[in-house]
Formats: sequence, C-alpha cells, structure tokens
Amino acid sequence: MYLAKIYVTHKPSILDPQGEAVKNALHRLNYTSIESISQGKFFEVNINADSKEAAIKVVESICKDLLVNQNMETYSYEVEEG
Amino acid sequence: MYLAKIYVTHKPSILDPQGEAVKNALHRLNYTSIESISQGKFFEVNINADSKEAAIKVVESICKDLLVNQNMETYSYEVEEG
Repeated sequence: MYLAKIYVTHKPSILDPQGEAVKNALHRLNYTSIESISQGKFFEVNINADSKEAAIKVVESICKDLLVNQNMETYSYEVEEG
Repeated sequence: MYLAKIYVTHKPSILDPQGEAVKNALHRLNYTSIESISQGKFFEVNINADSKEAAIKVVESICKDLLVNQNMETYSYEVEEG
C-alpha cells in the first residue's frame, strides 16, 4: 500500500480569486504581514500497488484523467510507502 | 519573507463526501487500485516576518481565525525561508 500526497495549484499566470479573497479577509482581520496567498487542492490517496514505480504511474494518470485541469492548474506529488 | 505551506484536511471521524465522490469517479474510470482518497485544502502563504518563529505564530493564528474550521478540520504546515 502506498500513500500519495498530491498538491494541485493554479498556474502562476492564472488568476486565483479564492486566494485573493482569503488575503483580503486576512488584511481586514489586521494580518497585514500576509504578502500573498494562493489556495489549491490537496489529495491523500491510498493506492494498492506492487511497487513505488507502479504507484507513481497511477498517480500520474489519475492527475491527468480527473484531478487536475491542465489548462489552468499544475500539480506535484510525493509517494511514500505506508 | 517566509513561505508557509498549510494543509487542511477533514478530521478522520468526519465524513468526506468530496473524497468519496472522487474515489467513486476513479473506480468508474477503472482505477480499482485506489483504496481511499481524501480531499483537503492547500494554502501557500507569503509572510513578511522577522524570524521563522514570528512567521509560525502568524500561521497558527490565521489557521485558527480563518482558514480552518476546528470542529471538522485539522491542519499541518511547513514554514521555510524564501
């Protein structure tokens, strides 16, 4: 069993309205030291696989097939045995 | 300047309907090796602070004040200079 942690964020060129809204809310709460904030998605996936390589292959394809909108988003991941 | 990466996930005892929906969608796409999946939020925050300790303090308070619903969610974070 492998645990994959997948982080999906907006591409830098894409406007992130959620992140902007959170930043403005924090400024209103007087957290003026917050310079910028971006909000993304975070998936923890348990995968039945024979090897780490096989698990990574599954992660790559589920990102492309479902989890990530590759026009607007970018992703990174870590896979660990667990 | 410090970069904080904040991960917000459902508490284990709380139902995660988004994660369930994603798992079901992946099973329909024949990714049967997916055992379980949980979906959370991921924030990247740039903080103006004099020290790592000061940045961590800011992270702890913005989590409690805005980013995390402590009844249902739990969080973890990493703070690095950047």
